[in-house]
Amino acid sequence: MGEIKVIAFDADDTLWENEIYFKEAEDRFAETLIQWYPKQYSIDELFRTEMKNLGAYGYGAKSFTLSMIETLLRLGGDNVTPEMVKTVLNAGDKVITHKVECLPNVEETLSILCKSFKLVMITKGDLLHQQRKLKESGLSCYFDHIEIISEKDKNEYQRVINLLGISAAEFIMVGNSLKSDIIPPFELGATAIYIPHDHTWQHEHSEEPEMKNGRYYKINAIKELVNLIHQITH
Amino acid sequence: MGEIKVIAFDADDTLWENEIYFKEAEDRFAETLIQWYPKQYSIDELFRTEMKNLGAYGYGAKSFTLSMIETLLRLGGDNVTPEMVKTVLNAGDKVITHKVECLPNVEETLSILCKSFKLVMITKGDLLHQQRKLKESGLSCYFDHIEIISEKDKNEYQRVINLLGISAAEFIMVGNSLKSDIIPPFELGATAIYIPHDHTWQHEHSEEPEMKNGRYYKINAIKELVNLIHQITH
Repeated sequence: MGEIKVIAFDADDTLWENEIYFKEAEDRFAETLIQWYPKQYSIDELFRTEMKNLGAYGYGAKSFTLSMIETLLRLGGDNVTPEMVKTVLNAGDKVITHKVECLPNVEETLSILCKSFKLVMITKGDLLHQQRKLKESGLSCYFDHIEIISEKDKNEYQRVINLLGISAAEFIMVGNSLKSDIIPPFELGATAIYIPHDHTWQHEHSEEPEMKNGRYYKINAIKELVNLIHQITH
Repeated sequence: MGEIKVIAFDADDTLWENEIYFKEAEDRFAETLIQWYPKQYSIDELFRTEMKNLGAYGYGAKSFTLSMIETLLRLGGDNVTPEMVKTVLNAGDKVITHKVECLPNVEETLSILCKSFKLVMITKGDLLHQQRKLKESGLSCYFDHIEIISEKDKNEYQRVINLLGISAAEFIMVGNSLKSDIIPPFELGATAIYIPHDHTWQHEHSEEPEMKNGRYYKINAIKELVNLIHQITH
């Protein structure tokens, strides 16, 4: 296989836990409305609000919290109490301020791969929040370059690949979102390695690419990554 | 004077109106509490909340909106109605979604300066919000490079100067915040041009640097910038 120069990693739910905190907050949000609406209904309405606000608010925990409050007011109407708003606001705050917990074998894997490849982190969401999580994770030292972007689409991946001074064929992207981490780099001609996570936000779901050209791989956990990269590059 | 290669601009309240939208929202926030608290008291309490949350939430309209809701709940207690929360949420939403209005003579100034210098925009706040404002302003075409960062301190300015492959002596920063746009680049040895704006957030206030080395300038409006740059560089 070709000469791989850069391995890029998604961060949320690839390097560290993320979606579980959103799900916890979502549960607390739905509980505040449970006397009037079934849990799934409230969660679906929240998702609808998030999609409506996505263009203006973008991704991340602050946007999510604002959307929770907006949905609470819409569904709860005059029955909404200050206590309910506080519960939802606190639930959102926990998403923003939770401790970072790296996924198993992440640090070990990065420490091996960084000896042979340039490692890059590419993530979307709140600028400050992602910087803080990276710092707290203790993983900064393994990365040559960090990109925090507002949308992970083909244009943005091409921009990063150009910035790194390489071609798509020299680039591997690793992540848990088919929509954001796998399809766009795969379509540009890069290699994409999908590591599903038990909890992935419904907005990130997409069809798996066809297994053509040997440029798409799926593994169960990051501990399989070093071996796979070895196979790909030898 | 030395060889200036790059002129960098702050965005909010240097290129386009920003703080007026925050002030409008702040007014609406204080009005919802006016039956219990004098306006200035509510505004001071809001600022206190913003400062408490700054480390975790960062700058920008979404953080501001979350801090407004938190302060409303704290000050209003059990008297807070869903209508009040909605008013404050809508006020915040207006800060996020308002139309971008460039300040007078901005486009003309950039169109002249971009012929002789590399222009860079350096701004803090929400990633997506700043990208959207830049796009909507129609000013993107004048900039060679955009930096949206989480804090405008000396380290970040040094990083940008290194990234541009120049020295601090070849760099001019233009902006309306002494704290964020003027002091840090000035201390690094760059030239700083201060253009005060009628409305500047109290967090951004600072002492003017001493007028030493001819590297600090203050002008009344951006329309004076072309002449000043001509003087500095000739």
